[in-house]
Amino acid sequence: MSERIFNFSAGPAVMPESVLREAQEALWSLDGTGIGVMEHSHRGSAFKAVLAQTEDACRRLAGIPDNYRVLFLQGGASSQFFTIPMNFLQAGDTADYVVTGSWSKKAVDQAKRYGNVHVAGTSEDRNFCYIPSDLDWSSKSRYTHFTSNNTIFGTEWAKEPEVPGDSPLICDMSSDIFSRPIDVKRYGMIYAGAQKNLGPSGVTLVIIRDDLVSDAALDIPEMLQYRTHAENDSCYNTPPTFGIYVMGRVFHWIEQQGGLKAIAQLNQEKADILYDFLDESVLFKPTADKDSRSLMNITFVTGKADLDAKFIATAKAAGLDGLKGHRSVGGMRASVYNAFPKAGVERLVELMRDFEAKQGEAKQGEAKQG
Amino acid sequence: MSERIFNFSAGPAVMPESVLREAQEALWSLDGTGIGVMEHSHRGSAFKAVLAQTEDACRRLAGIPDNYRVLFLQGGASSQFFTIPMNFLQAGDTADYVVTGSWSKKAVDQAKRYGNVHVAGTSEDRNFCYIPSDLDWSSKSRYTHFTSNNTIFGTEWAKEPEVPGDSPLICDMSSDIFSRPIDVKRYGMIYAGAQKNLGPSGVTLVIIRDDLVSDAALDIPEMLQYRTHAENDSCYNTPPTFGIYVMGRVFHWIEQQGGLKAIAQLNQEKADILYDFLDESVLFKPTADKDSRSLMNITFVTGKADLDAKFIATAKAAGLDGLKGHRSVGGMRASVYNAFPKAGVERLVELMRDFEAKQGEAKQGEAKQG
Repeated sequence: MSERIFNFSAGPAVMPESVLREAQEALWSLDGTGIGVMEHSHRGSAFKAVLAQTEDACRRLAGIPDNYRVLFLQGGASSQFFTIPMNFLQAGDTADYVVTGSWSKKAVDQAKRYGNVHVAGTSEDRNFCYIPSDLDWSSKSRYTHFTSNNTIFGTEWAKEPEVPGDSPLICDMSSDIFSRPIDVKRYGMIYAGAQKNLGPSGVTLVIIRDDLVSDAALDIPEMLQYRTHAENDSCYNTPPTFGIYVMGRVFHWIEQQGGLKAIAQLNQEKADILYDFLDESVLFKPTADKDSRSLMNITFVTGKADLDAKFIATAKAAGLDGLKGHRSVGGMRASVYNAFPKAGVERLVELMRDFEAKQGEAKQGEAKQG
Repeated sequence: MSERIFNFSAGPAVMPESVLREAQEALWSLDGTGIGVMEHSHRGSAFKAVLAQTEDACRRLAGIPDNYRVLFLQGGASSQFFTIPMNFLQAGDTADYVVTGSWSKKAVDQAKRYGNVHVAGTSEDRNFCYIPSDLDWSSKSRYTHFTSNNTIFGTEWAKEPEVPGDSPLICDMSSDIFSRPIDVKRYGMIYAGAQKNLGPSGVTLVIIRDDLVSDAALDIPEMLQYRTHAENDSCYNTPPTFGIYVMGRVFHWIEQQGGLKAIAQLNQEKADILYDFLDESVLFKPTADKDSRSLMNITFVTGKADLDAKFIATAKAAGLDGLKGHRSVGGMRASVYNAFPKAGVERLVELMRDFEAKQGEAKQGEAKQG
C-alpha cells in the first residue's frame, strides 16, 4: 500500500480516503452482487438502487424542494455553457451574466450564439481579483447566470446576488458546490462538474426547477434537452454509472461529517489557517480582495516568479503537490476542497513559515557579505 | 473478497478481472504518485502519461494510420447521433444510412434535423433479424452511416458495406469495437461508447480522419466540434480521466491476449459453442439469420414467454446473470463481449442442455399421465 501525499490540485482533486476504499471494493463486487459497479447494467436493480441512493442523499444534503429535479449528465460545465442558452434563450431574448473569471467569460461566449447577453457586472478591470457588488441588471432577462466560485482567481461570492424581478438565477457551482449550505429555492438551476467537490470527472450534477424543464426549447436534439433526462431519470442513454456511484459515496461521507453546515465550518477553519498566515506574512501575499476570498482556492504570490517556483519545488519535495497557480494569476494556488485534510493546510503554513524565515536569513547573509 | 458470477449484461458489461485489480490499486495511488487516478489533474504529467499510453495502445491495436485522430469524448454514442450531422450535414445535403436496429433508427432521427437522410437499406420488415445485402446508395452522399453490431437484435455485419464513390464511411461500433481486426483506412470515422468492449460508461472513443475534422462545420458550439477536441488532445475541458485510464488498461489486456486477431479467434470459439448448441436444440431457437449472427450478442427464444422466464430464473439462481432479452425481441440474450470468459459460455450451454432435458422429461411425464 503506497503512501498518500497532500494533493492541492484544483480539479480533478483529492477525494475522501474512505470513499476510495469503498470504491475499490465496489469495482470487484457491488454490494455482494458478484458483479463490479462498472459492470452492472444501468437498467438493472443494483444500479437503480445506486442511482436512487445518490439522488436521495443529494436531496437530503441540500434540502432540495420537490419541485426541483436532480439530473446526472455528461460533458462537464463546459457543455452546460451552450446547453443552457440552447434551452432557455431564443433569438431576440436577453440573459444577464455576471463575469467574474475565465469560466463566466466562456459561458457568455456560448450564450451569444443564441441571443443577447447583458453583462450585469464584471471584475475584469483588476484581473478578476474581486466579486463585483455594483450590478446593473437588465429589465427583461430570461435568466441570470453567475459563477459562485472562481477556481483560477481564488474569489467566491459570499452569497448569491440579489436579482430584482423573476429572472431565474442559474449558477455554475462547479468549484464550491456542497462546501456550504445552499438555499436551493433561490435558484432556477444549479450545475456543477463533479471533479472538485463531488467525485470523478465525467459527471455533471444539475439541479433544475420543474418550470424551467417544461418551458425549455423543443427544437433541439433530445440529448440536449433537460426534459429528456428529467423524464428518463438520467437513463435516456447509458449514464456514467461509476461516477454516479462515487458521487453517492461522497454525499454519504459529507453526511457523516455532519452535513453542509458542519462542512462549511470545517472549510472556514481550514481557510482561516492559511489566510491568517498570509495576512501576517512579509513574503507571501494573497491575490484576492479580502471580502471576495474563496474558501476553496486560495491564491497567493511572493511577487517574484523565481521565488514562487522555488517555493513550489520545495513544497513538492516535501510531499505537497499541485500548488502551482494558474498562468492567469501566477504564483501559488492551494485548492482545499471539502476532502482536503486540515493537517495538509497546517503542513503548508509550517512550510511557508520555514521558507520565509530562510529567505530572511539568506537576505541578512547577503547584506553582511555585501 | 466476494465471489464473482457470470455476467451476460449487454452493457455496461463484464470487464477483465486483471483490469479491475489494476484499477483498484490506481484508485488509491496511480503508479506510486501518492495520488489516486481520479484525483490527478488532467493537466499534470501523471494523467498526461495515462492519456498518451491509452492513445498509443489504441493506435497499435487497430493499426490506426497517422492521418486519423483518436479522441476521448463524453455523452455516449447517443450524443454522436446528433453531433455527426451537426458537423458534416448542411441543409440540402444528403447522408446515407443503413437501418439495422433501434440505434441506427435513432441516428437517422437526429440526422433529419440537419439535412436529408437516404435510407440505403433496412431490415425492419423482419424485426431486424438480418443484415440487408441489397443496398441502394444515393448518388451524392456527404457520408454513409451504419451500425456494425446490433446489441438488441443480435446481428452483426460480417464486414463493412461496399460503398461506391468517396462518401466517407461512418460506423457506430459501440458493441463490437476491438472484438476483431478493423481496416481503419476504409472508414472516415468510427465511434463507440466504451461500456461494452472498452471500459466504463461515460467515455466515447472517436477515431476520425483528418479531413473530416478540418472540413466540419464552424458555426456550432466549440464543445460539439471534433476540431476542438482534436486540437486540444481531448483536454479542451476536463475529460473523463478515470474512464480513459480504464480504457488504457483494457487495451493493454487485449494486447496481452494477442491483439485483435487473437481476440477475434477467441470470440469465434465462444460464439460457436453457443450457436452450435442452438442449431441442434429442439427447445431453444436463435433469432438472427445464420449469415447475420452477432458474435457479441447471441439472441434466442423458446417461443414461450413463460418458459423463457423460467429459464432466465433458473440461470440466475445458478449464478448466470443478465440473460433476459430486450423487450423488442423477447427471450434471452447472451452478451459475450471480449472480457466474457469461455467458461461462462460452456456453463450456459450445460445449463440449457440440462433445462431442455428436464422439459422433455416433464412432457413425457405429462403424456404418460394424460
